[in-house]
Amino acid sequence: MPTLVLLRHGQSQWNLENRFTGWWDVDLTELGVEEARAAGRLLRDKGYDFDRCFTSVQTRAIRTLNLVLEEMQRLWLPVTKDWRLNERHYGGLTGLNKQEMIDKVGAEQVKIWRRSFDVPPPPLDDDSPYQLAGDRRYAGIHIPNTESLKTTIARVLPYFEAEIAPALKRGERVIVAAHGNSLRALEKHLSNIADDEIVGLEIPTGQPIVYELDDKLQKLDRFYVSER
Amino acid sequence: MPTLVLLRHGQSQWNLENRFTGWWDVDLTELGVEEARAAGRLLRDKGYDFDRCFTSVQTRAIRTLNLVLEEMQRLWLPVTKDWRLNERHYGGLTGLNKQEMIDKVGAEQVKIWRRSFDVPPPPLDDDSPYQLAGDRRYAGIHIPNTESLKTTIARVLPYFEAEIAPALKRGERVIVAAHGNSLRALEKHLSNIADDEIVGLEIPTGQPIVYELDDKLQKLDRFYVSER
Repeated sequence: MPTLVLLRHGQSQWNLENRFTGWWDVDLTELGVEEARAAGRLLRDKGYDFDRCFTSVQTRAIRTLNLVLEEMQRLWLPVTKDWRLNERHYGGLTGLNKQEMIDKVGAEQVKIWRRSFDVPPPPLDDDSPYQLAGDRRYAGIHIPNTESLKTTIARVLPYFEAEIAPALKRGERVIVAAHGNSLRALEKHLSNIADDEIVGLEIPTGQPIVYELDDKLQKLDRFYVSER
Repeated sequence: MPTLVLLRHGQSQWNLENRFTGWWDVDLTELGVEEARAAGRLLRDKGYDFDRCFTSVQTRAIRTLNLVLEEMQRLWLPVTKDWRLNERHYGGLTGLNKQEMIDKVGAEQVKIWRRSFDVPPPPLDDDSPYQLAGDRRYAGIHIPNTESLKTTIARVLPYFEAEIAPALKRGERVIVAAHGNSLRALEKHLSNIADDEIVGLEIPTGQPIVYELDDKLQKLDRFYVSER
């Protein structure tokens, strides 16, 4: 039975500060490190094992995966890192905390974005300190200036179909260590969640989610490792 | 100019205890972790950067690489892990410290092995606790029961030619985080060192070695990053 484990990275510094992060490369906090290690120990103690790992090109997800693999004594597993598993790009909201966002765009607009599947935030200013134009990891990639959940899904799902689904169909046990919205994209697809519902799905940090799938990668079951 | 950086892992628990390790998967000590972090900071401070990373499937080398990449803020770089970059397999010496080895085989035999390019230690006993037959990372691989430096080179060099040399020829900057003897194999090749001399080449833990190469991957210069 194909098994896919999804894991959102542990707490990052900007999770702690309640700031929109998106593509900005913020590291884990000490708590985030401990969440990642605890996830690794939980997976090991519950008898989970993997053949292949996928993550984004963002430090907080990669470190989370590395800490999990360290605790599982599985650092030797193959790891593929791809920008298409990155967090959603929050455009002009990047770096703002909730109060700063309300001050910038008004409470009504905030409500619209929070509940919206396909309305992106305003684009990141050209002179924003959070521009990634010079970041070598994105060389040759058209870096978005903002993303809705819909446009995030539009890059996550083709990657899933091209790289992750074939591994699952080969019988490999897969873990994906990624971000709130790239994981929402996968959960929407795998659990067949409607556009207006997926926005409300909260994915906690450091809590491994198991998808048990049939041979056609249709969901048989979905649960938190900690619940079984 | 193609540039290759070689890095032996930081101190492992069995380096500290002066025991033959080989393919046994021993973790870094706290000092080893700090050596790895210091190597990463040194590379960053001296302006080194990489496009591709290679390491073995052994925890001490992978963790060393991960710590280096963490300090360099380069965790997103592609990392290839392959058993052909593993340490030399020490056969029946695995797990012994120097005194135990002398007790087991005699001082004369120890001298021969220490200076020998092509005489392997006795094979690992079938009932040794250090047998790796059940280790999933070696599934499908004919695990050696012992290796000389010569037979180690015979698996390292074809891997270098097949995977690492093409990356260098494409202009990628490469770091290899590996082990005393898999790095000896590369140094013998790149620096054209004779069989009877390579055995005496000591490669310190956690000290990045730079090879500057010409377009045909012939050595132009070789130095420790810490020396320049």
